[in-house]
Amino acid sequence: MSGESVPEITIDRIEKDILAIARFGQEEGSNGVYRQGFTKADMAARQWLMGEFEALGMAARMDGAGNVIGRYGPEEGPAVVIGSHLDSVPAGGIFDGVLGVVAGMEVVRTMAEAAIVPEYAIEIIATSEEEGRFGGMLGAQALTGRVTREWLDTAADEHGNLLKDAMAEAGLDPHGALHAYRRPEEIKAFLELHVEQGPVLDTEKVTIGVVEGISGVFKWNCRLIGKADHAGTAPMDMRSDAFMGIADFAHEIQRIIDEEGTDKSRITIGHVALKPGFPHTVPGEADFTIVGRDLDEEVMRGLANACRRVLSSIARKHKLKFEYEEMSWLKPAYCDEGLVQLIDGKAKELGYSSKLMPSGAGHDVQFFCNHTRAGLIFVPSVNGVSHAPDEWTHWSDIERGAQLLFECVLDLACEQAPVAEAAE
Amino acid sequence: MSGESVPEITIDRIEKDILAIARFGQEEGSNGVYRQGFTKADMAARQWLMGEFEALGMAARMDGAGNVIGRYGPEEGPAVVIGSHLDSVPAGGIFDGVLGVVAGMEVVRTMAEAAIVPEYAIEIIATSEEEGRFGGMLGAQALTGRVTREWLDTAADEHGNLLKDAMAEAGLDPHGALHAYRRPEEIKAFLELHVEQGPVLDTEKVTIGVVEGISGVFKWNCRLIGKADHAGTAPMDMRSDAFMGIADFAHEIQRIIDEEGTDKSRITIGHVALKPGFPHTVPGEADFTIVGRDLDEEVMRGLANACRRVLSSIARKHKLKFEYEEMSWLKPAYCDEGLVQLIDGKAKELGYSSKLMPSGAGHDVQFFCNHTRAGLIFVPSVNGVSHAPDEWTHWSDIERGAQLLFECVLDLACEQAPVAEAAE
Repeated sequence: MSGESVPEITIDRIEKDILAIARFGQEEGSNGVYRQGFTKADMAARQWLMGEFEALGMAARMDGAGNVIGRYGPEEGPAVVIGSHLDSVPAGGIFDGVLGVVAGMEVVRTMAEAAIVPEYAIEIIATSEEEGRFGGMLGAQALTGRVTREWLDTAADEHGNLLKDAMAEAGLDPHGALHAYRRPEEIKAFLELHVEQGPVLDTEKVTIGVVEGISGVFKWNCRLIGKADHAGTAPMDMRSDAFMGIADFAHEIQRIIDEEGTDKSRITIGHVALKPGFPHTVPGEADFTIVGRDLDEEVMRGLANACRRVLSSIARKHKLKFEYEEMSWLKPAYCDEGLVQLIDGKAKELGYSSKLMPSGAGHDVQFFCNHTRAGLIFVPSVNGVSHAPDEWTHWSDIERGAQLLFECVLDLACEQAPVAEAAE
Repeated sequence: MSGESVPEITIDRIEKDILAIARFGQEEGSNGVYRQGFTKADMAARQWLMGEFEALGMAARMDGAGNVIGRYGPEEGPAVVIGSHLDSVPAGGIFDGVLGVVAGMEVVRTMAEAAIVPEYAIEIIATSEEEGRFGGMLGAQALTGRVTREWLDTAADEHGNLLKDAMAEAGLDPHGALHAYRRPEEIKAFLELHVEQGPVLDTEKVTIGVVEGISGVFKWNCRLIGKADHAGTAPMDMRSDAFMGIADFAHEIQRIIDEEGTDKSRITIGHVALKPGFPHTVPGEADFTIVGRDLDEEVMRGLANACRRVLSSIARKHKLKFEYEEMSWLKPAYCDEGLVQLIDGKAKELGYSSKLMPSGAGHDVQFFCNHTRAGLIFVPSVNGVSHAPDEWTHWSDIERGAQLLFECVLDLACEQAPVAEAAE
């Protein structure tokens, strides 16, 4: 097809599909979307999607993990997979996850209209339970072989509901997820289009984020133990104030990042609990969390070591005892360099501003990073808002993200992709 | 009696009485004393005390506020009052309040044994509800005319139990507290002996604290409002992290005291609540308390103004909104200068180390400060611990405190007090 002009996706159809899916899980009298994994709303959306896939002429099925898979083009051989999720957090937004699935449908629709027959099949996978109601990313983990029978039997949500019961209620065999595995050679590439869920692109007025990888993350539960004293009778210099220990540490965070980190480093204290927590009592104990991130595991180690050193030194100064437990250490996951270049190059061809960046949040794509070639495209989130009813991305940015996805898929699925021409 | 040697109090009898009262409110299987105001244990201790007063030859009565009053000496005319409280916090210690009452009994006992007839009556008052189960110091307030009918009708404890119901259950007329008022001219002086409940005397190896006054105290409920962001997707320099605002403020507290305060100043952040409070979310909102104290109201104003300025400036720097509400502003209350000199002078005569100091905690005496001449004597709390089962004061320190109290009372109640002589 070399030399032909590249077809254009149609934003109105994407908008219509996003709004159609938004209706699944909109509860009377509350804002936002309630489509948590394996709820009735979630399963209804999946059923609806299967019908849409079939209407597009795709072979549609739901696998054992609840992933909805539509296949277009050759029945056999590896597929270029466009994947993202359909489930939402409680009171979530309408774009998170849905965009990637709906954009995939528009890619297939546009190909079909232009009578483009791909050499490799296109698969759209709407993964299940990406938002971690049950503490994982079930759909993507099952597809890449990262679930165990034991976990399927014991995983529970925050209310104590078991995953296996939720799956059974949704009409699924709880152990069916163990049959959802896709061998690496079945997947030519995995591409995800997602809203950034952060403020960088919106703040810097950049249209496309080309994701280099998903930052690694460590989480520490920390405790500083001092002595609870009467806030009136204990002179300032005779206290062992556990909160002053946290405050001093918080004050050092920027220096730690300046010295040990990169512009991709993040250190956050999100949770603090003081004991006894009374206004008139010097805090004798302070529990808090540290969550650290970077795209480079060596940098993560540097940040973690610095946090430990600084906290130990502060504890000595304030006559406190410092304890911590590393609750998790997730390594960074890297997108495929070739796909990063493909996405960035296509964005430039299309005249879209773009920047290479890490993803600080987790996405389905991270499980495919070490499984096959994987790529992730971000479009701007207005004010960086996500996981909230006022999550928003401008339709013009979605249009560009979808067009970019389309051209990347064309490139990967067709031996001779159409060449982009200047707009008529 | 000039020229005679001063009798000595007997520590064993004080110990026996303290341990006797400790049995009221010791619950099976838990440490510490549970003798909260108007509970069965509290009322049983008061009944026991009335019997002890009578056994000492005192006229004993319970007033409308539940204060137990024993009078020794002249039936008419002003009295030298020795007062402290019998109620405890939950899981409290055995000395807090009790010491002042029991030491009063030993003062009377020692006078009676030595056949000393005072010119002025001695009254021992075991006040009610000093620990503020119902949010005040009922006994001392009633004695000094600081209760209203409305407050008596509406005051409730943290579980919603009404003061008036608790009093009725204890067999008291809830409005009887309005009849407990004692006119200033009925009280020649009010003296209290109490454990320090702080670490100063123990740390500095000083036996007697001569209290100059009770520090004034202000309490602010503060709020910093920023923006809750995903801890992974929000770069450090694009955050409005409400917790970082508190941390920066906490870091400035010592400077504020250095610049605006005195060695008697205290500023404490005892309560912090972050919203949403999740490890992976940048805190969008932070509620916290500031409690500030000093013995000088002008200094208190300087500390408060500095807190406001610093928090406003930090809020601007971190793109936060700062709000606060002043929940209370209690002025300092000063002990009588003559009594301060009397106590300090007698301590020196007795060869006890002493220091002038503020009381950071509230005490019954504070209501008598602006009502009559009032004085407060501290003895050391081991490690500064109080309001806890392991509250402790060495018996030898209690012996000295009680002897000092005895000699001060002699001085005030007898026109010609016995002169102290060197120990034989």
